[in-house]
Amino acid sequence: MSKRIDALPFLLIVLVVCPVRADRDPLASWNDTPARQSIMKFVAAVTDKDGARFVPPADRIAVFDNDGTLWCEQPAYPQFFFGMDRVRVLAPQHPEWKDREPFKSAVAGNLEGVLASGVRGLIELTAATHGGMTADEFDRIARDWLATAKHPRFQRPYTECVYQPMLELLAYLRANGFKTYIVSGGGLEFMRPWTERVYGIPPEQVIGSTTATRLELREGRPVIVRGLEIEWLNDQEEKPLAIQRIVGRRPIAAFGNSDGDLPMLRWTAGGDGERFCLFVHHTDAEREFAYDRQSPVGRLDQGLEHARKNGWTVVDMKTDWKRVFPARE
Amino acid sequence: MSKRIDALPFLLIVLVVCPVRADRDPLASWNDTPARQSIMKFVAAVTDKDGARFVPPADRIAVFDNDGTLWCEQPAYPQFFFGMDRVRVLAPQHPEWKDREPFKSAVAGNLEGVLASGVRGLIELTAATHGGMTADEFDRIARDWLATAKHPRFQRPYTECVYQPMLELLAYLRANGFKTYIVSGGGLEFMRPWTERVYGIPPEQVIGSTTATRLELREGRPVIVRGLEIEWLNDQEEKPLAIQRIVGRRPIAAFGNSDGDLPMLRWTAGGDGERFCLFVHHTDAEREFAYDRQSPVGRLDQGLEHARKNGWTVVDMKTDWKRVFPARE
Repeated sequence: MSKRIDALPFLLIVLVVCPVRADRDPLASWNDTPARQSIMKFVAAVTDKDGARFVPPADRIAVFDNDGTLWCEQPAYPQFFFGMDRVRVLAPQHPEWKDREPFKSAVAGNLEGVLASGVRGLIELTAATHGGMTADEFDRIARDWLATAKHPRFQRPYTECVYQPMLELLAYLRANGFKTYIVSGGGLEFMRPWTERVYGIPPEQVIGSTTATRLELREGRPVIVRGLEIEWLNDQEEKPLAIQRIVGRRPIAAFGNSDGDLPMLRWTAGGDGERFCLFVHHTDAEREFAYDRQSPVGRLDQGLEHARKNGWTVVDMKTDWKRVFPARE
Repeated sequence: MSKRIDALPFLLIVLVVCPVRADRDPLASWNDTPARQSIMKFVAAVTDKDGARFVPPADRIAVFDNDGTLWCEQPAYPQFFFGMDRVRVLAPQHPEWKDREPFKSAVAGNLEGVLASGVRGLIELTAATHGGMTADEFDRIARDWLATAKHPRFQRPYTECVYQPMLELLAYLRANGFKTYIVSGGGLEFMRPWTERVYGIPPEQVIGSTTATRLELREGRPVIVRGLEIEWLNDQEEKPLAIQRIVGRRPIAAFGNSDGDLPMLRWTAGGDGERFCLFVHHTDAEREFAYDRQSPVGRLDQGLEHARKNGWTVVDMKTDWKRVFPARE
């Protein structure tokens, strides 16, 4: 008993200090525009216990695309640069790559050449560089690369090319009882090593594309080995299907930036009750990049139509965000 | 401020009442045998902050098989009876089933005949009865069946043929900071409608076999439709692979009852630090069923060897459990 009573002064400190902290603006990097207002209005509605639009915490599921929504995807997906770097490391063991695209261009560091090989090339490159090792080995390879690789334009680690306003949004939603998930076309095990540290999103809340795996016994111990085939390409319709399979609840909020996210946003919007859908529109060539309908990476065409028709929020990066990236560490 | 100060009397009540509640035996249905002692010793070790074997809460992942581990799987898996009942409902639309096993036996209510068609028959029966409708429709069908179907011997709903000692174990682990998962060969969407109510395990912590799904637009709204193929059969090696894919952390505790759970238990045991593996051994023909090496359902042969060799816990249902099922509601 006595030990518990001793805790009271500490409790009082917590009670007194908390209201002060709540005064800080949780979305400090957002300008006070309709985009920000729509977010705050939605959160207020679903957390108001006495309101008609209240949603119990267990159902406050928010899903986020990653590339172009939480971190920079231009001039190409970071995982794409990872794949190219891996090709260079592995090339000596693969003489057959010398005259074969996209490997030839990757070895030469020719980004345009690799991109020219299209989706088929991207899949081939990913399969060849993301498999053939244990899960633990891949985890180490991904960590090492992320610790040293730098964005070609911003010259900072890719994990610092994340959007400060979106980091605040993630934290704001969680502070209001939301569970935040990543639902990305990116590789599951390429994201997990850093999403908890950078986004506050733990491994079990990351949904991504997967490589087929198998279990092997090595010296009597089971080991997970990554194969050379893609098991699940988590894009377009596959996003809502994966959400149902893994989360088992329909999200009430979804955040994306490209047409590949549209099925996930429509799935979210199609449920009953209060819903929130948001597209990040890249309009800021100066601080980041400006692209939509014509971009091979992160093409946003149909999505803009849908957003307008359905009253979804579209973030205009240039006018809605006070800053794009976090301050340098 | 004043509102917060008013909360103090309530806080005091919580502080005073909590120690009293902790006096209740969390494993009241377990006899004080080595099985129970091994569980309590493990939990004490990983939750002792000053101990060498402490495990932070985020890594306290516990995985549970379902059939035969959390609920009764004899004389056949409940989902199997569900499939047979579905065949009878659907038979008028499928004249081709008349002379074809396992459908012919299923329509006749002949359990032995259906079982005789083996794994292939079981898969065919499941695919034919679990697909061809929307995810929402299947959810309703499963709920309706579970609300009315009764176990052939115990004459109570299947969801009341769950093991009281395991319910206590689940709650005890969660009270000690564990996250509890189901990792079952059973159908994912057959389990989700009731696992939260019965086991306290929410939909996103259920891992099971899945039917292939697709997204369709119906009257402009996206709908998830279940196909007729099995996408993932979650048994044997597939259990640890699914855990890695969905949880992304290696469990520190695993609970099973058959050889199909062995790869999951070995995967759990193979990690560093404190680990706990347990097999439920069905030894109680009077209160439940007695079976192991010879049983077509829940065969436990190699697992017993492994448990002995590796010092895993084996629950002898007859001597370790005071009661098997919960009191009737």
